[in-house]
Amino acid sequence: MTKKIVLAYSGGLDTSVAIPWLIDKGYEVIAVVLDVGQGGKDLEAIQKKGLQVGAVQSIVVDGKEEFADKYVAPVIKANALYEGAYPLVSALSRPLIIDKLVDIAHENGADAIAHGSTGKGNDQVRFEAAIHALDPDLAIEAPIRDFHWSREEEIDYAKDHNVPVPIGKQSPYSIDANLWGRANEAGILEDPWNVASDDAWGMTVAPEEAPDEATLLDLTFEKGLPVALNGEKMTLANLIVKLNKIAGENGIGRIDKIENRLVGIKSREVYEAPAAAVIMAAHKDLEDLTLERDVAHYKPLLEQKVTDLIYNALWITPLFDALQAFIDHTQAVVNGTVKMKLYKGQAVAIARQSEENSLYNKNLATYTAADSFDQVAAGGFIKLWSLPSMVFEQVNHVHSVEKK
Amino acid sequence: MTKKIVLAYSGGLDTSVAIPWLIDKGYEVIAVVLDVGQGGKDLEAIQKKGLQVGAVQSIVVDGKEEFADKYVAPVIKANALYEGAYPLVSALSRPLIIDKLVDIAHENGADAIAHGSTGKGNDQVRFEAAIHALDPDLAIEAPIRDFHWSREEEIDYAKDHNVPVPIGKQSPYSIDANLWGRANEAGILEDPWNVASDDAWGMTVAPEEAPDEATLLDLTFEKGLPVALNGEKMTLANLIVKLNKIAGENGIGRIDKIENRLVGIKSREVYEAPAAAVIMAAHKDLEDLTLERDVAHYKPLLEQKVTDLIYNALWITPLFDALQAFIDHTQAVVNGTVKMKLYKGQAVAIARQSEENSLYNKNLATYTAADSFDQVAAGGFIKLWSLPSMVFEQVNHVHSVEKK
Amino acid sequence: MTKKIVLAYSGGLDTSVAIPWLIDKGYEVIAVVLDVGQGGKDLEAIQKKGLQVGAVQSIVVDGKEEFADKYVAPVIKANALYEGAYPLVSALSRPLIIDKLVDIAHENGADAIAHGSTGKGNDQVRFEAAIHALDPDLAIEAPIRDFHWSREEEIDYAKDHNVPVPIGKQSPYSIDANLWGRANEAGILEDPWNVASDDAWGMTVAPEEAPDEATLLDLTFEKGLPVALNGEKMTLANLIVKLNKIAGENGIGRIDKIENRLVGIKSREVYEAPAAAVIMAAHKDLEDLTLERDVAHYKPLLEQKVTDLIYNALWITPLFDALQAFIDHTQAVVNGTVKMKLYKGQAVAIARQSEENSLYNKNLATYTAADSFDQVAAGGFIKLWSLPSMVFEQVNHVHSVEKK
Amino acid sequence: MTKKIVLAYSGGLDTSVAIPWLIDKGYEVIAVVLDVGQGGKDLEAIQKKGLQVGAVQSIVVDGKEEFADKYVAPVIKANALYEGAYPLVSALSRPLIIDKLVDIAHENGADAIAHGSTGKGNDQVRFEAAIHALDPDLAIEAPIRDFHWSREEEIDYAKDHNVPVPIGKQSPYSIDANLWGRANEAGILEDPWNVASDDAWGMTVAPEEAPDEATLLDLTFEKGLPVALNGEKMTLANLIVKLNKIAGENGIGRIDKIENRLVGIKSREVYEAPAAAVIMAAHKDLEDLTLERDVAHYKPLLEQKVTDLIYNALWITPLFDALQAFIDHTQAVVNGTVKMKLYKGQAVAIARQSEENSLYNKNLATYTAADSFDQVAAGGFIKLWSLPSMVFEQVNHVHSVEKK
Repeated sequence: MTKKIVLAYSGGLDTSVAIPWLIDKGYEVIAVVLDVGQGGKDLEAIQKKGLQVGAVQSIVVDGKEEFADKYVAPVIKANALYEGAYPLVSALSRPLIIDKLVDIAHENGADAIAHGSTGKGNDQVRFEAAIHALDPDLAIEAPIRDFHWSREEEIDYAKDHNVPVPIGKQSPYSIDANLWGRANEAGILEDPWNVASDDAWGMTVAPEEAPDEATLLDLTFEKGLPVALNGEKMTLANLIVKLNKIAGENGIGRIDKIENRLVGIKSREVYEAPAAAVIMAAHKDLEDLTLERDVAHYKPLLEQKVTDLIYNALWITPLFDALQAFIDHTQAVVNGTVKMKLYKGQAVAIARQSEENSLYNKNLATYTAADSFDQVAAGGFIKLWSLPSMVFEQVNHVHSVEKK
Repeated sequence: MTKKIVLAYSGGLDTSVAIPWLIDKGYEVIAVVLDVGQGGKDLEAIQKKGLQVGAVQSIVVDGKEEFADKYVAPVIKANALYEGAYPLVSALSRPLIIDKLVDIAHENGADAIAHGSTGKGNDQVRFEAAIHALDPDLAIEAPIRDFHWSREEEIDYAKDHNVPVPIGKQSPYSIDANLWGRANEAGILEDPWNVASDDAWGMTVAPEEAPDEATLLDLTFEKGLPVALNGEKMTLANLIVKLNKIAGENGIGRIDKIENRLVGIKSREVYEAPAAAVIMAAHKDLEDLTLERDVAHYKPLLEQKVTDLIYNALWITPLFDALQAFIDHTQAVVNGTVKMKLYKGQAVAIARQSEENSLYNKNLATYTAADSFDQVAAGGFIKLWSLPSMVFEQVNHVHSVEKK
Repeated sequence: MTKKIVLAYSGGLDTSVAIPWLIDKGYEVIAVVLDVGQGGKDLEAIQKKGLQVGAVQSIVVDGKEEFADKYVAPVIKANALYEGAYPLVSALSRPLIIDKLVDIAHENGADAIAHGSTGKGNDQVRFEAAIHALDPDLAIEAPIRDFHWSREEEIDYAKDHNVPVPIGKQSPYSIDANLWGRANEAGILEDPWNVASDDAWGMTVAPEEAPDEATLLDLTFEKGLPVALNGEKMTLANLIVKLNKIAGENGIGRIDKIENRLVGIKSREVYEAPAAAVIMAAHKDLEDLTLERDVAHYKPLLEQKVTDLIYNALWITPLFDALQAFIDHTQAVVNGTVKMKLYKGQAVAIARQSEENSLYNKNLATYTAADSFDQVAAGGFIKLWSLPSMVFEQVNHVHSVEKK
Repeated sequence: MTKKIVLAYSGGLDTSVAIPWLIDKGYEVIAVVLDVGQGGKDLEAIQKKGLQVGAVQSIVVDGKEEFADKYVAPVIKANALYEGAYPLVSALSRPLIIDKLVDIAHENGADAIAHGSTGKGNDQVRFEAAIHALDPDLAIEAPIRDFHWSREEEIDYAKDHNVPVPIGKQSPYSIDANLWGRANEAGILEDPWNVASDDAWGMTVAPEEAPDEATLLDLTFEKGLPVALNGEKMTLANLIVKLNKIAGENGIGRIDKIENRLVGIKSREVYEAPAAAVIMAAHKDLEDLTLERDVAHYKPLLEQKVTDLIYNALWITPLFDALQAFIDHTQAVVNGTVKMKLYKGQAVAIARQSEENSLYNKNLATYTAADSFDQVAAGGFIKLWSLPSMVFEQVNHVHSVEKK
């Protein structure tokens, strides 16, 4: 009896070659393309190509809205930037892709799932950890990791198996893209002292090419998520698409960094995330206005953990869920509007308001209270605030002079 | 017998009026101006003014190099940005000022120290906590906090006591500046929905006024601190002065944020820190290249604590010292050069190298090792990495389907 | 028009004297005794005494079940031990007392609340912070903090105002007790080198006096809370009462420690919490069996924060609520039974089981999987696990020898 | 040319069989026994046995003092208890063993190191991570992990290769011991609901068998480490040996817990660490007396990290070193004496003093100061302390009633 396998299919050479390779291993292949807003690709053509190179079924799934609502939203609420900079673009699509593939595997009685990651990157871990969590009985195939082929050998294999080979010079880059951004690695970027050249970028113009006039826009949030752009309500997925265009035209969202991969090596990555740059700056600014101080000062600790879990392939875990419960609780009051200025590569908040939840309010009793505490409360506060370290100095004289 | 008091003197109306006020309370006043690079001020004139309004001594202390080396340096090494944004400008000068004032008090047999802070801000806590730590026997006077005067009453008191009153319209802003930056609060900024107007800024041009061509510069670090600009060695204080000029002309270093004060209220602050924006981005980028992963991922936790201690008036404490021991240990390998691009308000790292300490190195055995682990190691790693959450799902089925 | 005030009344001399003192200040006094299981007191007599010394109303509120379910439960679920040792006995009753007092104030149109804390302790902060949070318009009176009386002056004032004065030698200790335990401070304990004498303890026998045979008992938990003792279901409040007796007879739950108070001083405290010692050891043991590793290793971080918030008077805060959301999420799987051995001062877990949620299960596929990963997976895991620090050593040679 | 390998040799069946197995693979074997105080073994006989079964060299290294001073000391200073309970017994000896083996490998021109760990445990990671860090060029052999033999096959192989096979019934347990304690796993303990039977323990009597009279002893610390027992100075290694005897006779130091292994599985472990139980309780108690509050409250965060690094095979890492810098800094003031009571299974601190560094001191100005702050300072402190959460409630009314 033939085994069935569900393949995360992109239409590129690697996952196309994987189809005959999996057939050779005795599988019937179901190719699945997930539309997470990667853009610039004819998904219908990819679907047909899947069948053409040997898949028994080829399926396109539109995951854009779900991707935004279930996978991007936690990143916004948690201000999740890996190593302080990277908004987790590729890490987000992996658990969604597996979620869909496992469903399709169950519907079709498949025994295995295949993905197209190599053995040096993070994505293999994200794919396989998600499969292990959702159904540990599913076998896993990672053909690209197992090929051990040179480029030439791969092309020969492709030709032998009627897999179309792209004509002309190969791009020196390895790209992954979705609604939330675009990742680029390898090629000339491998020397960290090389400046990334113009062709490394795909979603943004250079700041120097951006308009000479700033673009101002108002971003409105409800419970920590953007719901309207300049007052116009739209879904999160649509808002991200719109902002990618506007911010990209203003040269915003480029990231160039040395990154620590989960598999233990440092890599040089070039990312673009124009909408993310705008939304996340605005979100943080609105939190400054609406979060109580202790929440504001403690949340970053958990934000770093959420970020690391996402990056490190631990999305489907009880710790991730428990952290979401904390984060979601804090976002109930993050409502309001932030005025953003987009100009030549930078997005900054220049004004903000929250009618219901601003903790900065001139009309509040606080300020009157503040006026009354000036005289006495502050002095008392300072005494008790500094008492433990004062006693420490009196006893140990690390910084002070001992008196007789 | 007359008591002596040492006053932190700025030359402004508030601390000038404080002199006769302290004399009225029975003190001989020693006025001390600390030069921490506040700029734009004739320190000799201020010194004379101190004597003119009644001080028995008036002293100017040049603290610029010490300020950079002992107070700014820890901020750079710790990537210390309060609430993710503010490089602690004013918070840094307070412990240095008190350190000098306590020495002068001891040299002159003074019994007390006076500072010019109000009762609503953080600086009163920073001044007084430092005094408590360095000599708890010194009495503290906080005349401005205790005046309870309206502006008019203050001016009347000044005129009665021969204190020169500034002529013309008052600035609507309250400014504090030093080598590391400039803080501005109050005035029209009190409504967070108001955009900061042009006159709120003093060290930077608007990004729109900055040159149309980017400025590239190489910043070289040793043990986590910048030591050379474009290959030219200089002291940290001089390097900051130079960079403030270059970066300020490129519109870099503006910060506009709602901030949680130690005394429990939210305020709207407008800061400028041009050199800080460049140095701190470069430092973080070089750390990405040279810090081992676990160090890189754990250090931010301690960085936030260091930052909060500095902001919260806890510089002279055993916890601050212990944290420095950790931070300093990590910085031994942070050596190398970062190429920064300054353009229209933004400073970004575009290339970096570290001859001795780069952990990203194509020629390293790692990469060959990596090639060999591709095939087998990654698969084994993934299995053990995801084992605990896989077992959790097998038992509890939070995300997965239970099978019979 | 007379102002009304609601007083947290204990029946002791201090809060009894407070009644005429508050009347002198122009208040009508409503005395409220909250029964939180302090035990050993005739609450009816206390109620009458309140009226007798001048209160217009005297009310007893039974808060035992609510105290257990809303205030003790979070401590169990969070393994909350202040400074690793103190299960927060007194800190827990304060927010409940204020919750009731504020309700009574609102029902009776009172303008103010009075509490009997001194100015050196934590409880004044807990009382007043809770009042500020629940109704900042309520005035606060703290008569004991404001008396400035010597013991003799207090007794004279009592006699002048017909307040009964206890006859005979005064206890040298200051005691606070409730369902969850008993706190004792001051007296001979003030020298940390003094061993606490026998009369310092009230809920426990000395371990030497405990039975020579161990007591074994089974504690059953649901969602992180004990619901049955030796298989018998009971309310949390009743279970605590029962366990206090059993564990107290076995000499269990004594704590003797130097503690850092919120107000900045160190104090020497002697606590007893027999039921807490048993329940919390059992809870932690069951978590070891049922929590996934990353949850188990991350939760302690939040546990410390929860603990500090409770100790530091920050129960009614958004951070506390958000942390509860995290904690509660983790407790869904903490179901099962722990066998505890109680013997001569110590309660230890000696066996545990969880039918539904044990992650330790010999019959699980894991163990078979583990057998298969032995050969290959472990080696791959180790290589990637140690790769970052290996590269660090290859470059920097901190511990290793540099080779040519 | 023959390759040389250095083997971590214990004298037991597994590592004895490993010798011919390694010879079969073409190695000359250098057997090394490290004396880390495992006790109860004739090291001379083990050394001879190494030669007898085929090693070209057999070496015994006395590592007891170094083990105490360099490996146990950091555990004491960091209060390092894995998952709150396990003082890291086995995890400590691994990096020391490898340190010695790598030196011996270098001295003898060996190419490889062999260890006797299985593939399911933590120790394989600790051994191999240390080898990777100290010399990544050394090959690693893990014969026991690679045998894939049943017990019977191993015995047959042993007989075929003249390796003496122990006669009589095998112990059902797998034991590892050193100066700091003893670990026991497997056997009947594999069911967590089974109570550990008497023969599971080796260093302690049952509490019921302990003397009916308590043993009191004074433990004196310098810079966080115990230096004298009842006033008698001795090395750390000797002090641990003495205390193991005294505390073991009092039934102290038994630990029975479900533990999360680094390799991703839960195991049931039974540990004994009598000296550790006494020393660590005393150390923590003395810290309560001498550490400033913020240090005391922040240090546990780093302690957990130190603990996890040790358990997780990351001893030779830059993060471990940086954390030691922090920990060591805090220990400068941890000087003094703690009076411990040892009785029937429990060691508790009952009194403590520190002449030079006690922050609890009745004669300090603090207490007088405290008396003066009672009246005013506390009230001011409370207002500012609770201000942020009060404002949050005024705006958001999560717990309070909204007023009109």
